[in-house]
Amino acid sequence: MRVTDTDLALAAALADAAGAAIRPYYRADYGLEAKDDASPVTLADRAAEAAMRSLIERAFPADAIIGEEYGVKEGTSGRAWVLDPIDGTRAFISGRPIFGTLIALVIEGWPMMGVIDQPILRERWTGVMGKPTLFNGKPAATRRCADLGKALLATTSPALFDDSQLHAFEHLDGAVMSTVLGGDCYNYGCVASGWLDVVVEAQLKLHDFAALVPVVEGAGGRMCDWQGDPLTADSVGEVVAAGDPARIEEILEALACRGH
Amino acid sequence: MRVTDTDLALAAALADAAGAAIRPYYRADYGLEAKDDASPVTLADRAAEAAMRSLIERAFPADAIIGEEYGVKEGTSGRAWVLDPIDGTRAFISGRPIFGTLIALVIEGWPMMGVIDQPILRERWTGVMGKPTLFNGKPAATRRCADLGKALLATTSPALFDDSQLHAFEHLDGAVMSTVLGGDCYNYGCVASGWLDVVVEAQLKLHDFAALVPVVEGAGGRMCDWQGDPLTADSVGEVVAAGDPARIEEILEALACRGH
Repeated sequence: MRVTDTDLALAAALADAAGAAIRPYYRADYGLEAKDDASPVTLADRAAEAAMRSLIERAFPADAIIGEEYGVKEGTSGRAWVLDPIDGTRAFISGRPIFGTLIALVIEGWPMMGVIDQPILRERWTGVMGKPTLFNGKPAATRRCADLGKALLATTSPALFDDSQLHAFEHLDGAVMSTVLGGDCYNYGCVASGWLDVVVEAQLKLHDFAALVPVVEGAGGRMCDWQGDPLTADSVGEVVAAGDPARIEEILEALACRGH
Repeated sequence: MRVTDTDLALAAALADAAGAAIRPYYRADYGLEAKDDASPVTLADRAAEAAMRSLIERAFPADAIIGEEYGVKEGTSGRAWVLDPIDGTRAFISGRPIFGTLIALVIEGWPMMGVIDQPILRERWTGVMGKPTLFNGKPAATRRCADLGKALLATTSPALFDDSQLHAFEHLDGAVMSTVLGGDCYNYGCVASGWLDVVVEAQLKLHDFAALVPVVEGAGGRMCDWQGDPLTADSVGEVVAAGDPARIEEILEALACRGH
């Protein structure tokens, strides 16, 4: 099963609908609540996911839907739409326009299409496995990184690592030129466009990483878990994105330093 | 000596000139170098500061200029223009539009006027001590925060704290609802506009914090050092910004926990 033009058109419509749902709540009364896991959720997250789900159900009733806020709707097609209406809810509620809506089409467990959409800046990365990634409709490309010591690394927060992951991350942090914090999914778009070299994170769920894989890989980068294995619906959420696939082994070696 | 309309007009012209100098380098070939202290500098930082300095020298030849990139030009007027052409150079080179140009007018050691300008989003906060802060020309106001446990805290990077500062910061981090990383000067604009409640940082230099004080205070917030003293040209760079002045004592108490 391949990604069709109809799938791509739906993904664009989903991103448009999510953005329309989110924008009225940005820097406004967003109705913050804490979820069971203490992570924040707002009226914007819920409105955006509801809008996307209703469009998917109408277009592809046999497809599964896996959303961060409204859970799993089983399907019969082998296809699943994986949605994170606002990745970076903390950035959203802080008034920072670098959160994103994540939309993935996962086929037989493999992320085959992904969208990272920033609805305030109206920036959109669209990736399909085996095709060039587009940034606002134009091809995006990662940059070469001949020397890991010159690399720019990003991660949303070291607080998301456990002790052994933090040890590994600090090893990598010491090997690169510079590290920026914050950024959520926006960092992966920046890798796809050749502005950042590496992103490393942990504790990501399927809805956090599925959309990123086609975007980064279609731009010439490489995404995998901390063991170098491909990211699938069964991955545990340790994620690496490298703009230059030639640097992936050094990155994985650094991340193998889990401490004593 | 007070801030005049001529000063305000010059500050706006400086921000315009810096933005015009910076924009061509954003997400482009910005010519990165490492300074002596290993912090990054680009052609954009240098072009923006040079453009601002030349405007100040023409308008107020007797004023001092203190710039991050080109150092100190002594003056005889008791007034100093304090410039950080790109605060958040790491964000700038990462392609994140949440860095900023900082422009302050410091009179007899006191920050009396400040501008935080984001040239990509074309967002500008302008503050004058004793007057309402403006965000893109409209009044900006911090928000009340009745409960520190509901506060949204930001800091650019915990790596900028020494051990005792980190201990103190973690104490505060544990007392608030949520913490976002990254953001640089943009965080202080977000406090002034009521989107964030608290920013705590250390190791800030005069060019990093001088412009922030009039912006945050003119919006109803409070800025001080970690002892609660006002920020002046002699401050050591431990900085607190609170949107709600009623929470400042609790914040300072948490930051007094410097470890054993």
